[in-house]
Amino acid sequence: MSYTAPVKDMLFAIEHLAGIAQVAALPGFEEAGLDTAQAVLEECARFNEGVVAPLNVAGDRNPSSWKDGRVTTTPGFKDAFRQFAEGGWQGLQHPVDFGGQGLPKTIGAACAEMLNGANMSFALCPLLTDGAIEALITAGSDELKTTYLEKLVTGEWTGTMNLTEPQAGSDLALVRTRAEPQGDGTYKVFGTKIFITYGEHDMAENIVHLVLARVAGAPEGVKGISLFVVPKFLVNADGSPGARNDVQCVSIEHKLGIKASPTAVLQFGDAGGAAGYLVGEENRGLEYMFIMMNAARYAVGLQGIAVAERAYQQAVQYARDRVQSRPVDGSLPGSAAIIHHPDVRRMLMTMRSLTEGCRAMASVAAAAYDAAHHHPDATVRKENQAFHEFMVPLVKGYSTEMSLEVTSLGVQVHGGMGFIEETGAAQHYRDARILPIYEGTTAIQANDLVGRKTARDGAATALAVAAQARRTADELRAAGTPEARAVARRLAEACDAFEEAARFIAANAKSDPNAAFAGSVPYLMLGGNLVAGWQLGRALLKAQALLGAGQGDAAFLHAKVATARFYAEHILVRTKPQRDAIVEGAASVTGLAPDAF
Amino acid sequence: MSYTAPVKDMLFAIEHLAGIAQVAALPGFEEAGLDTAQAVLEECARFNEGVVAPLNVAGDRNPSSWKDGRVTTTPGFKDAFRQFAEGGWQGLQHPVDFGGQGLPKTIGAACAEMLNGANMSFALCPLLTDGAIEALITAGSDELKTTYLEKLVTGEWTGTMNLTEPQAGSDLALVRTRAEPQGDGTYKVFGTKIFITYGEHDMAENIVHLVLARVAGAPEGVKGISLFVVPKFLVNADGSPGARNDVQCVSIEHKLGIKASPTAVLQFGDAGGAAGYLVGEENRGLEYMFIMMNAARYAVGLQGIAVAERAYQQAVQYARDRVQSRPVDGSLPGSAAIIHHPDVRRMLMTMRSLTEGCRAMASVAAAAYDAAHHHPDATVRKENQAFHEFMVPLVKGYSTEMSLEVTSLGVQVHGGMGFIEETGAAQHYRDARILPIYEGTTAIQANDLVGRKTARDGAATALAVAAQARRTADELRAAGTPEARAVARRLAEACDAFEEAARFIAANAKSDPNAAFAGSVPYLMLGGNLVAGWQLGRALLKAQALLGAGQGDAAFLHAKVATARFYAEHILVRTKPQRDAIVEGAASVTGLAPDAF
Repeated sequence: MSYTAPVKDMLFAIEHLAGIAQVAALPGFEEAGLDTAQAVLEECARFNEGVVAPLNVAGDRNPSSWKDGRVTTTPGFKDAFRQFAEGGWQGLQHPVDFGGQGLPKTIGAACAEMLNGANMSFALCPLLTDGAIEALITAGSDELKTTYLEKLVTGEWTGTMNLTEPQAGSDLALVRTRAEPQGDGTYKVFGTKIFITYGEHDMAENIVHLVLARVAGAPEGVKGISLFVVPKFLVNADGSPGARNDVQCVSIEHKLGIKASPTAVLQFGDAGGAAGYLVGEENRGLEYMFIMMNAARYAVGLQGIAVAERAYQQAVQYARDRVQSRPVDGSLPGSAAIIHHPDVRRMLMTMRSLTEGCRAMASVAAAAYDAAHHHPDATVRKENQAFHEFMVPLVKGYSTEMSLEVTSLGVQVHGGMGFIEETGAAQHYRDARILPIYEGTTAIQANDLVGRKTARDGAATALAVAAQARRTADELRAAGTPEARAVARRLAEACDAFEEAARFIAANAKSDPNAAFAGSVPYLMLGGNLVAGWQLGRALLKAQALLGAGQGDAAFLHAKVATARFYAEHILVRTKPQRDAIVEGAASVTGLAPDAF
Repeated sequence: MSYTAPVKDMLFAIEHLAGIAQVAALPGFEEAGLDTAQAVLEECARFNEGVVAPLNVAGDRNPSSWKDGRVTTTPGFKDAFRQFAEGGWQGLQHPVDFGGQGLPKTIGAACAEMLNGANMSFALCPLLTDGAIEALITAGSDELKTTYLEKLVTGEWTGTMNLTEPQAGSDLALVRTRAEPQGDGTYKVFGTKIFITYGEHDMAENIVHLVLARVAGAPEGVKGISLFVVPKFLVNADGSPGARNDVQCVSIEHKLGIKASPTAVLQFGDAGGAAGYLVGEENRGLEYMFIMMNAARYAVGLQGIAVAERAYQQAVQYARDRVQSRPVDGSLPGSAAIIHHPDVRRMLMTMRSLTEGCRAMASVAAAAYDAAHHHPDATVRKENQAFHEFMVPLVKGYSTEMSLEVTSLGVQVHGGMGFIEETGAAQHYRDARILPIYEGTTAIQANDLVGRKTARDGAATALAVAAQARRTADELRAAGTPEARAVARRLAEACDAFEEAARFIAANAKSDPNAAFAGSVPYLMLGGNLVAGWQLGRALLKAQALLGAGQGDAAFLHAKVATARFYAEHILVRTKPQRDAIVEGAASVTGLAPDAF
């Protein structure tokens, strides 16, 4: 099954929703206008459609394998990764100073979606490398930057994030890996890390592990965690990889999906200690890790959109090809392609509208990131930072949860064939299932949304988001077409629901935390639902304006209008029970005592 | 991971919701009172927990395999099936005249849930055999009955249903397998059938295939389909298996789940024609097949409940064992078992309440089946038949769709461990995915619900169901406890939503079929949601009455009240957007033309 990058929809979001013209007005992004976006996206599409996508099925059938501490990736991966690195794709969003291209996230996010749509297992390696780069740029010493950054940005070496241990998953306070100072500024690292994505592989000549560990005597809990660079191979004075460091891959996991991506158990220090280099200051590791994690969480949200898009494309193709049963309206005398059946259309529209809605949300969040980092005005930076940070749990949580729904519908559209592995629809269903779990489960995202993003400022940011969405609802009502008014009505209801939920959560987070957190995931889903619907509402307004002016691709714009309306009438309407569960259903969540289950 | 049959909850449903006392008052079921139900369920639990459940993981890791036309099942399956047959479990619901135990469906359904909860792949073989038995009892000649029935009822032989062909899935009008009369009353059958569950295996000495085929000159479409018995081995005059018939298993499928259950491609007639024996009359095959299908559809609904129950049990166990993070309310100084976290409780309550709600619905539907077949009064039989037939698409469609939600939450509760196959949570997620597809997809169930079950009688049955649910809502309101009133409120809203949807569908099914069928699956989900919530409302009333009278197991009854309330506040509330999508969202389902996707 082939993959076609949704360049047209991405460019629509980048131009009309994210506002690439404003991004290109930011210092440092002068070259990054619509033309650049289009050129980069088209080149990126060619590469991913041609080189990376064809390896997706191969990766599932012939996953990475482990033998004697070495991991062999799926045939073809190593060569594709070399092409990826040579094409400069790893450095797309990274600073020119370290060999990157310095493009805005608004463009980079679309490219990341494509890479993941082409092959999620493959894309995980660059995703984790991006995290390592971010951490080093933020907190690494000049020496660490000099030694590692360019190698990572160019894709010669890859990076990992080593957080999880058997007893420490969501709760990093329980990390036990320890680092012993050697008196020369370096450390020896000892411990076991699990679930390390691309913790070992054969696609690059060195792997730069970023490892959370405790220095002896550090405070208990998360305030005693430090961050270390632990390279697979020590680095010679000339920058080349030297002796093997004391870190071993003792096994990889047998997983439900993303099978080509090796998930390693890494053992540090069994032969005397792995050489480790402190990033930033001792005991500030979690703070640095959060910088990486915000980027990684956003990136995982893109993975959800990517796998949803691919499942959607495959389902549409099958629905066009598979002939079965007469249309219920008698419009054809014999059997029809199943895309003519209303329920198949309902499934495809659900898949399409969720995917486009989440893409629009992610695109707007990316533009806010760019403004937060590049705008000359500190107030504007701060506003955009608050908006972007509010969006991260929504992009991560909502887009990944929706990817479960979309990939499940993808199987369903295929009927019995969907359950047969050869068809390929089941792979998306299996691959997607990790997305609401890693880089913080949906509940962890929701806790972040409730605690840091809503309760802390008394729901100010949340209500500001709702106010913006309500303005769009007003504009839709004023636009007056049946489609715009249909969306306006559901969007306004969703704003009501979200505002009530946000106020409830802000009011109860301290006084009755069980009540506030009982609704945390419904609140996240409500927020994501609202923002995606709001962005599709904006898309509808823009599409109708362009159609009115006789501009643009009329078929594409009509489809955008139809998709926005479907989303409002079938997905946005879910916000009412989400609000009900949060505001009026908290007590029943914890009504049954733990020992009564 | 072990399995504990939910005997207590099953008996509660059988006694208080299905009304076993009324079933035992039916002619032929005099012995089938509560004591019998309890004795049978406890024996059934022992067998399934001890013999069948331990093979569930083995079946996933070491699936059925094919070589040279022969299928070898997972080690242990053959012996377990022998014990199953010897225990008389295949004949539980079948007539005493043919070696069965003649028990009501009200009891048999609970036993079937247990078998599937223990091992869904294993349970499929008896499930299909039940279908073959039903077809032969309904339409088989005395000779066919004599030759085959007792062997099937005792589990010496097994049965299959051969409907699907590559071009004929949901649309049986496209069946091409043909049967040529031989002049002696027998036929030769030629063709290819796919997706034949247990179409070949090594657990029994003969396999009785029931095959849909066309006799030359038969009318086009579904009115020209006949049903044949095609045994794997021809039957000697003394009833023993004789020569091999001309039917070969040419391959089995590589599937997402239920891997131990061999899904065969069967080739009929490559060596001159497979001997086939007509069931009933020519061209009435589909009608007979529908008898089997109603039973099979109901049984697949039970599979959804069964796999949900097993996923729930595993998730509860993990949530009790896994220690991670402090409680948000500060009630414990250190890290707690994750069952103390509100969102984990929300997930477990969702899993629990959906499972119990669907079990209650299925139990009540089973009692209606028993009354429809055994009540002395024809009017009562007819009413119960209408109710049971209305319930079949809800039991099948809603219970299986909910099993996707429950098994997905089961993975989520496990966090990263859920994605690792060794944990076992992922198996349930994979296994469940076939349930909304086979024996008629959810859309096929929904078409049945819309067309035959709602539009045909002008929504009379649908509105009668809603009226009964509304009476329960009234009783709950009158009961006056906070829990009862909370459920009453949401149940009444759900009745409103369902009635509006049913009226919309009845009004539009002929005049605007696209509009009616656009909402078919949301209508099925709304109906299932309502009926499960209604039954949990009845359960709450009964539980509070028993508690008030100081009777029964107080902890169990309190849990039932809490579960019913959770369902009302978190699941029943979904009926409003379901109604909105049906009544106000039909146009947007088909707003985008097929070629615009």
